[in-house]
Amino acid sequence: MKIAILGGTGHIGKGFALRWSQKHDIIIGSRNAERASSAAKEYRRMLEGLGKKGSFEGLDNKTAAQMADVVLLAIKYRHVSSVIETITPVLHDQIVVSVVVPMEKDSCYIVPDAKHMEVDVRDSAYNAEYFCYTQPAGGSAAEEIAQLLPQDIRLVSGFHNVPAKHLEDLSLELDYDIAVCGNDMASKEVICKLIDDIPNLRPLDAGPLEASSMIESLTPLLINLAIRNKMGNLGVKFV
Amino acid sequence: MKIAILGGTGHIGKGFALRWSQKHDIIIGSRNAERASSAAKEYRRMLEGLGKKGSFEGLDNKTAAQMADVVLLAIKYRHVSSVIETITPVLHDQIVVSVVVPMEKDSCYIVPDAKHMEVDVRDSAYNAEYFCYTQPAGGSAAEEIAQLLPQDIRLVSGFHNVPAKHLEDLSLELDYDIAVCGNDMASKEVICKLIDDIPNLRPLDAGPLEASSMIESLTPLLINLAIRNKMGNLGVKFV
Repeated sequence: MKIAILGGTGHIGKGFALRWSQKHDIIIGSRNAERASSAAKEYRRMLEGLGKKGSFEGLDNKTAAQMADVVLLAIKYRHVSSVIETITPVLHDQIVVSVVVPMEKDSCYIVPDAKHMEVDVRDSAYNAEYFCYTQPAGGSAAEEIAQLLPQDIRLVSGFHNVPAKHLEDLSLELDYDIAVCGNDMASKEVICKLIDDIPNLRPLDAGPLEASSMIESLTPLLINLAIRNKMGNLGVKFV
Repeated sequence: MKIAILGGTGHIGKGFALRWSQKHDIIIGSRNAERASSAAKEYRRMLEGLGKKGSFEGLDNKTAAQMADVVLLAIKYRHVSSVIETITPVLHDQIVVSVVVPMEKDSCYIVPDAKHMEVDVRDSAYNAEYFCYTQPAGGSAAEEIAQLLPQDIRLVSGFHNVPAKHLEDLSLELDYDIAVCGNDMASKEVICKLIDDIPNLRPLDAGPLEASSMIESLTPLLINLAIRNKMGNLGVKFV
């Protein structure tokens, strides 16, 4: 298959590009075609260094989307509407996949152990940073993307919960579950097969697109858990 | 410790009552003291049948909360405000724990494989039921409970993601992660020790109370995954 990874110069895009390039043709998409092209070169060199080959091309988002069977949106939430606007004229029969997680860093006060101390709680409190899911007005990033896309374009939501750093390190065997949402079973199956192409990733059906906020919000939770419990990069297994 | 489990006659309450009764004194709380008392008797008999002992008492919610060191709210979201109102007069130094998950069953259309068929999509679509997290106006059940409680009462949010049926089956060894949120490190540590009392449950700090929606919304996701992928009762491991 031809897989366009829009935002393919970023961390999570890079990981999928490297892994899928073993079985598929990868088109790196970026707003800047030159950056896409140099990323494609870099990924090719990385694989050569490991004695492997991979098919990469780097193009602007629109051309990348036009040539692909599957278009992965590995972009930031704030770029969603402009990227969709860019690619809409060339969408026909592709399956679009949203990996978008709307989140931000916030902070609040945590009390170390002040309850029974004769001090002002705020004196001993510290400012704790954490990531939170910023639920879009449309319910989830995926549902908003569905609203922006032409009505006959099939959308799947998934891949939010894989740690990018592990994905891009080909020496690591991954062992994670990938929850996938969508309202069209046939395209969901195509995407599940792409997940099966990466050894030890297990695709799981998490229901309709309307359930997407629950897989999107898992990402900031994983980041918080990783930071607070010094656990490195975290993925998830449903057991 | 004396642990009051309000909603202790329900599935999730039962599991914690049975497991913790091996190390702690359990007070089952219910709006109906008689139901609490007969649940306490039932749990005692269940343990005797397994050749084990456990300390159980069954009381109305208010009396149960008054006697306890830790008050577990294993209740439905719609009962939160009335239960908090009931127990507030007797709260002094207890740690309150919210296990509350606001969720509901919803439905939407799923298309099996209609895109390329010469049929009306709705004809071949089917109505798919799924559970969704119904985020409260206050951000999460835990944050709303914090607003309802007297200001000096310490609140921890946790235990949302354990499958009740596995918890109450003492023949099963559990192997799950338990994410815990709260703004008071000392009380969070007390609750993490209670998690450690149940073999193979791993407590993890998921950040402040403000991050609670991300652990609450994991519960309907687990239910959807379990149903759609025929996986039985699901918990979670962060790996």
